[in-house]
Amino acid sequence: MTYQTLKTETADGIMLLTLNRPDRLNAFTLLMMQEMIAALDVADADDAVRAIIVTGAGRGFCAGVDLDDPDAFTSARPDITSTDPAVWNDPTNRDMGGVLALRLFNCLKPVIAAVNGPAVGIGMTMQLPMDLRITSTKARFGFVFARRGIVPEAASSWFLPRLVGMSQALEWCYSGRVFGADEALAGGLVRSVHEPEDLLAEAYRIAHEIADNTAPVSIALTRQMMWRMAGAAHPMQAHQIDSRGIAARGGSGDAAEGVASFMEKRAPAFPDKVSTDMPGYFPWWDEPEWEMARGRGATT
Amino acid sequence: MTYQTLKTETADGIMLLTLNRPDRLNAFTLLMMQEMIAALDVADADDAVRAIIVTGAGRGFCAGVDLDDPDAFTSARPDITSTDPAVWNDPTNRDMGGVLALRLFNCLKPVIAAVNGPAVGIGMTMQLPMDLRITSTKARFGFVFARRGIVPEAASSWFLPRLVGMSQALEWCYSGRVFGADEALAGGLVRSVHEPEDLLAEAYRIAHEIADNTAPVSIALTRQMMWRMAGAAHPMQAHQIDSRGIAARGGSGDAAEGVASFMEKRAPAFPDKVSTDMPGYFPWWDEPEWEMARGRGATT
Amino acid sequence: MTYQTLKTETADGIMLLTLNRPDRLNAFTLLMMQEMIAALDVADADDAVRAIIVTGAGRGFCAGVDLDDPDAFTSARPDITSTDPAVWNDPTNRDMGGVLALRLFNCLKPVIAAVNGPAVGIGMTMQLPMDLRITSTKARFGFVFARRGIVPEAASSWFLPRLVGMSQALEWCYSGRVFGADEALAGGLVRSVHEPEDLLAEAYRIAHEIADNTAPVSIALTRQMMWRMAGAAHPMQAHQIDSRGIAARGGSGDAAEGVASFMEKRAPAFPDKVSTDMPGYFPWWDEPEWEMARGRGATT
Repeated sequence: MTYQTLKTETADGIMLLTLNRPDRLNAFTLLMMQEMIAALDVADADDAVRAIIVTGAGRGFCAGVDLDDPDAFTSARPDITSTDPAVWNDPTNRDMGGVLALRLFNCLKPVIAAVNGPAVGIGMTMQLPMDLRITSTKARFGFVFARRGIVPEAASSWFLPRLVGMSQALEWCYSGRVFGADEALAGGLVRSVHEPEDLLAEAYRIAHEIADNTAPVSIALTRQMMWRMAGAAHPMQAHQIDSRGIAARGGSGDAAEGVASFMEKRAPAFPDKVSTDMPGYFPWWDEPEWEMARGRGATT
Repeated sequence: MTYQTLKTETADGIMLLTLNRPDRLNAFTLLMMQEMIAALDVADADDAVRAIIVTGAGRGFCAGVDLDDPDAFTSARPDITSTDPAVWNDPTNRDMGGVLALRLFNCLKPVIAAVNGPAVGIGMTMQLPMDLRITSTKARFGFVFARRGIVPEAASSWFLPRLVGMSQALEWCYSGRVFGADEALAGGLVRSVHEPEDLLAEAYRIAHEIADNTAPVSIALTRQMMWRMAGAAHPMQAHQIDSRGIAARGGSGDAAEGVASFMEKRAPAFPDKVSTDMPGYFPWWDEPEWEMARGRGATT
Repeated sequence: MTYQTLKTETADGIMLLTLNRPDRLNAFTLLMMQEMIAALDVADADDAVRAIIVTGAGRGFCAGVDLDDPDAFTSARPDITSTDPAVWNDPTNRDMGGVLALRLFNCLKPVIAAVNGPAVGIGMTMQLPMDLRITSTKARFGFVFARRGIVPEAASSWFLPRLVGMSQALEWCYSGRVFGADEALAGGLVRSVHEPEDLLAEAYRIAHEIADNTAPVSIALTRQMMWRMAGAAHPMQAHQIDSRGIAARGGSGDAAEGVASFMEKRAPAFPDKVSTDMPGYFPWWDEPEWEMARGRGATT
């Protein structure tokens, strides 16, 4: 596929998704959101993709919403505070960062952010539903929303405290300051810091450890089990799904190969594919609807 | 306002709230709870208050409930285990630490605990719904409830694991031991440790970073978004509120000023006030009721 | 009691539960699950048990499900993906690791894992609903499910992200790699690392700090308050239960002894027993049912 705002390259089981507006520090546009979702759709449907690495072209990762993009705020200008359901339910009125975040949440392949340079606003919050963040020493991070007079978006109020704890999340969002890789590491936002020239190699190393050793269907199920149970009230909810998973997968060809390859001390060759072999109970959830609750009827 | 158990002083955008019973190590009384809530009400209503610092007068922060206060346990003596709704629903039967904790949870201004000395029991748990905790080397902390034959209160079973993780939370509550600033820092309970003479200066520095750079309405919204989404089951709940926030705030005078001041590399002068300019969708939640569920009908 | 797969020894307030199939690195069987639950039932019912330490005999902790155990997977072989409620609701179709995890979740006594050697698969995930994990330098850990073609179990998708954060949880489950005590410590999975010969002594030290200083009923209530509120949407849910707890316990003999022993600077002698003196509101929850929701009707 060809994109205007990004490029993708799949080789050896890994899709490299590069945000590609380097003259604008890869600033975010409505088209970039649409193209990132399209690329994730491709990745999820393609059994040749075992993991996704997201990085930026040039010296930036993503400098936030492009203030010169005429479409960037289009979707955020109606009176969404209206009580008219027609206004509220119009999907074009949704926060576009959140649309991307929810798509990432539903992804079936591991997503690794390789943060090569400045990442602020949506350039920061889009990373939170990715699974792992590694960073170059040149990266800069910022939850700058309160300095711009707006609010955190991309569902970051749900993701960020779960990644770094409530106090660190609040401190970064309250101050709105831009900070470096060391503070990101100390605060638990990123997994590790690397020299710029080593960043992608480390991302590929992590991706290959997954791709070379594990069953694709197991990984897809694991990703959804973990992210979804983060909000579950009681471990019984996990037990319900685990039981289906162990039953459905315990008798699979993948399980037989997993045990055999372990016994024989050789690399596994798992037969099952995400495109055709996800178990019948998947997906086990009802996708929440956009208009659902409208924030009312809940206490959160 | 004049208080008997505390004093407040607002200058340059910051309210300093000092627990002020130094001859009792600022031990907690029913009146102190009521006066703290009154002071928070003042802070929330006063646009001159951009952040709140809570500290203790003298050598203590707060030594827990004052065992000599005749009113301290009055509210906790009826047979609340009765199934008579009249007993259960009597608001004077509520844990008074929890009444304060829930008021802090709903606060519209950032709250920074500057822990200058011993903080045990409610003196410890009252800090958990505050946003950040910094401490002097002289502070001491203790979740001493099991050593006193009672139970953790002030909704600390909800707050503490979200701040420090489940295992650390359990270890402190199981042992009931009193520990120092270094253990509090290592366990993630406090953000940083300071010499006693530097403690308030650091608290003011953090508060001013917020007050000098950010939009008050953005901060009030951010505080509630973050704390409330901590318990939300699915990021869609955040997306619902984000979308309203981005829509309502994206066209605001604050957003225009945020972008303009950034482009012009000058300090912002945000026009919107918390007292008059909170968006129409705020508050977006239904406040949970005291008698709600009574713990029954839930699995938690 | 006599067991075939483990041994227990209670002295001085502490039950030591040793997984005891050393020739199989204490690999997990259906019988071991049943016997662990039986031992926990004994511990909860016996006022002489104030805390439980779980360790392994010989050089292993638990090497995962015993692949040679004919019963191990019996319970996981039916077509649980059937929509026939009779299949789904058959309790023998449940993930056996999850049955154990839910029993641990409901435990009334603190549980300390003393990990003496390799712990993979269910040998790893069974530790997560325990309260604290300490480890020998000889231990090895692994969330190996994706390498075996199956999925994480024992409700670990609920427990693990709450203990170590989402990104660390995903990295370990995605890679499936086996790692050592240092990585477990750095990632927050274990509390501390010890020389092999010091491991049990440290576990006993922690257990005795609880047993010697705190009220048994307070500890039992604290354990359930903490674990259950981890999934609660709003701190009001904690406040409901806290208020009952403070009311019921504030007037107890334990509370009187807690204050008196503190004032008199002596060790406490708490009168109340878990077997007979739990307050009337306990348990305050409705136990979720196995067939509940079946994963449907929820968004997680």
